[in-house]
Amino acid sequence: LAQDWNFGEGFPPRNIAIVGVSRTEAASAPGYTGLGVLCILIQAGFPGNLYPVNPYASVIEGLHVYPKLTSIPERLDLVIVTVPPAAVPEVVRDCVDAKVLNVQICTSGFSETGQEEGKRLEEEIKRIAIEGNLRIIGPNCIGFQIPSARIQMHADTPLVPGPVAFISQSGGHARIFLLRGPELGLGFSTAISYGNALLMDSTDFLEYLGNDPETRIICLYLEGIKDGRRFMNLVKRLNRVKPVVIWKGGLTTSGARAAVSHTSSLAGDRKIWDAFFKQTGAIEVSSVDDMANVTMTLLRLKPSTGNRAAVLAAGGGSSVATGDICTQNGIELPPLSEQTKAKLLEFISLVNQGVANPIDVPNVVMDYPGLVRAYELLAADPVVDMVIIHLGAEFFMGRILDAMVELQKHVLKSAGQNHRIKPLLVALSNEGQVRDTQKYEQQLNEFGVPAYGSLQSACRALNRFANYHRFLAESKAQNDIVSG
Amino acid sequence: LAQDWNFGEGFPPRNIAIVGVSRTEAASAPGYTGLGVLCILIQAGFPGNLYPVNPYASVIEGLHVYPKLTSIPERLDLVIVTVPPAAVPEVVRDCVDAKVLNVQICTSGFSETGQEEGKRLEEEIKRIAIEGNLRIIGPNCIGFQIPSARIQMHADTPLVPGPVAFISQSGGHARIFLLRGPELGLGFSTAISYGNALLMDSTDFLEYLGNDPETRIICLYLEGIKDGRRFMNLVKRLNRVKPVVIWKGGLTTSGARAAVSHTSSLAGDRKIWDAFFKQTGAIEVSSVDDMANVTMTLLRLKPSTGNRAAVLAAGGGSSVATGDICTQNGIELPPLSEQTKAKLLEFISLVNQGVANPIDVPNVVMDYPGLVRAYELLAADPVVDMVIIHLGAEFFMGRILDAMVELQKHVLKSAGQNHRIKPLLVALSNEGQVRDTQKYEQQLNEFGVPAYGSLQSACRALNRFANYHRFLAESKAQNDIVSG
Repeated sequence: LAQDWNFGEGFPPRNIAIVGVSRTEAASAPGYTGLGVLCILIQAGFPGNLYPVNPYASVIEGLHVYPKLTSIPERLDLVIVTVPPAAVPEVVRDCVDAKVLNVQICTSGFSETGQEEGKRLEEEIKRIAIEGNLRIIGPNCIGFQIPSARIQMHADTPLVPGPVAFISQSGGHARIFLLRGPELGLGFSTAISYGNALLMDSTDFLEYLGNDPETRIICLYLEGIKDGRRFMNLVKRLNRVKPVVIWKGGLTTSGARAAVSHTSSLAGDRKIWDAFFKQTGAIEVSSVDDMANVTMTLLRLKPSTGNRAAVLAAGGGSSVATGDICTQNGIELPPLSEQTKAKLLEFISLVNQGVANPIDVPNVVMDYPGLVRAYELLAADPVVDMVIIHLGAEFFMGRILDAMVELQKHVLKSAGQNHRIKPLLVALSNEGQVRDTQKYEQQLNEFGVPAYGSLQSACRALNRFANYHRFLAESKAQNDIVSG
Repeated sequence: LAQDWNFGEGFPPRNIAIVGVSRTEAASAPGYTGLGVLCILIQAGFPGNLYPVNPYASVIEGLHVYPKLTSIPERLDLVIVTVPPAAVPEVVRDCVDAKVLNVQICTSGFSETGQEEGKRLEEEIKRIAIEGNLRIIGPNCIGFQIPSARIQMHADTPLVPGPVAFISQSGGHARIFLLRGPELGLGFSTAISYGNALLMDSTDFLEYLGNDPETRIICLYLEGIKDGRRFMNLVKRLNRVKPVVIWKGGLTTSGARAAVSHTSSLAGDRKIWDAFFKQTGAIEVSSVDDMANVTMTLLRLKPSTGNRAAVLAAGGGSSVATGDICTQNGIELPPLSEQTKAKLLEFISLVNQGVANPIDVPNVVMDYPGLVRAYELLAADPVVDMVIIHLGAEFFMGRILDAMVELQKHVLKSAGQNHRIKPLLVALSNEGQVRDTQKYEQQLNEFGVPAYGSLQSACRALNRFANYHRFLAESKAQNDIVSG
């Protein structure tokens, strides 16, 4: 039976010891050596005490080095272990003796290798930790990024605080989300890479983040789960308060094989996970980009269950593709009301253009007053829940970026006066030569315009956003019936 | 009943007249004015006679201007019409009088507007052309790009000759393919934008390109089809000799609505098209990028029906995603044989790495001798049909680009000695910060390494490549039985 580890004591850590810090290391050393971890924390400006541990050194990076954990003069919130696999059990014993609150084992080479020696060492660590009541994160993990506490996970992941938490069984996926998120305006409360989950699992971290006031959305990348029942009940409860967004890796045969080799995880069955998502209402995604888009949408848009869009596009063939892509990705493009069409035709010529939905108006999107007029007419149509502008990056080189930012200000100003305001969104085209797409996506997001790198990703995110709010509304209705 | 127009007489054109060329035009004029078309042809270095037609001018762009078509001293292969809609019927009458071989009507504002006047004008043009036995391309189209004849469609589409033909009901999609293709090393025989297909339809162009010796692959973007039976029989026959790649737009309700508004096309039903693809073996794609990837694959790889890959990747979480993406997109990742695994383990450490398939080897992919050794072991395994290297763009900043190019040379050299050679492919990762992905994709393709912008697009293209060759093999087997 899985144990409840009450993760959170000593978190965020106010002091950190790192076991296995060399004085120097070869240029070819892999990224997560003890010295590397130490340098990242120093560079991040971690304000608490840092204790390098190495019996053969006295000063490293200007810090006093301790020969062993028990010689450190204060109780430790977190010990990061980076020694080779065979030396880990002894360090874990030292952690028990020093009454350490949390131990993060970065070292790889355990059960995920599939080899006997690795499995044996992992079992030994488990036994020592359970007997000593020691909280182990990992092994085979990269640990934490906590921007508000100036704890950094990778050398290149910027410390941007914010409401998003990420619990990830992969340090690589955590790095990508921590790099990508800020491009969409997302900041992080805590990101956790927890590897093999020998003792503490996603459920433990989820419980902690559910109670964390800084965290408003919880994202997870999972390969395996130790206690499915406890995890499901927790997600079911939390998802009503803080959206839970999950990428479940390894749901195909070859993905599952890779999950065994990566974190020694048993990936589970597609059918079980389908039932899980249906019952909990958690939001399923299938990549980090997907996760970032859904999270951005949940944070930026006011709650809505509507999935009907009006799309402004430029180009006839492109508009046909726009219609197909929206429909195939769960966003409905309703025919506009006759009144809206008539009003659009007051200033839109039909030569080379069209006012079906998608509205194919290359001339209008180039022109700020026309854009405002079109937006207002579309937003006033009761069949429309949102207005999407779908254009290639080349359109943003000129004045359109400014026009879009102005329009967004106008939309937000109107929002104060009108509760039925419809969101304005930009989906960049990813067809053809797309070199600047990500640049404009980032700029638009910086200026507060929710922007997506492709129409596919926009529709996928908007569809799941609406489904999430529909799930909440239906659950609430059911609860009201039960309690009424 | 649709007529067979015997398209091809006077093609590629050796002379071109353009009706509706102004001396100057406002900077705000749309792209496809008569003067614009003339300037593009001059800039492209079209070697034949160019005849601007305008009753009120004598010299434009240094060329003698003719007052009307019948005053031009030679028979015309192609007349391009750019006058406003109401003036088109008279120009078409002049074309009949001048016994013009082909007429391309760029002008928009006909049946695609849904308005009575446009429909009436289109019917009038149709009547005149049928009575005069005149080949009409368009209206509402952009015409031709024929690199070998120095005929250019858009001001920015480079003239790169080659074996790919593109028949497109959208000038915008044609532009994107003509821009994107050369980045993947694709050159074009002919691209045709034919708009409303008032008289000449995709089937007519398909017949012509089927007989064109320069064309080896025929791609189509279709909104509607006039004569489904004739089209299907032609595709069925041609596809065995020249692969036929089709993007059918408007297969959803809102896509179909946009198709009516774009080219006045009736888009047809998903079920009918499913049956069409099943019977003809034509390759279905769903975007220009998709089309470009499939075409590149068909041109670069030797015929093969195999869909089993070994994937070299870097990163544990990324490898799980790799397995899932391949499986979900029709590429199988078989478990490697025990012998292959044992040989890989002779030089691959399992710490932070794995030799499941995907093979997660961040250290190996950074190292040319290791890469060659891994490729050779994987290629020698009978369960493997191809080797895919799946890495983020960041890996290519260093020495990997060179290593990959060296390895490709090595593969091609070995191919001379060994007929069972397995292709080497690169799929760049599109997760996270992807600014340089397209740059490295282009560089790899320039150096002859088939490279794709994402693993999804690689698998989708490779899957359809294998299916195409399986269709050919099965049809051949059936024919052999029938004739045997």
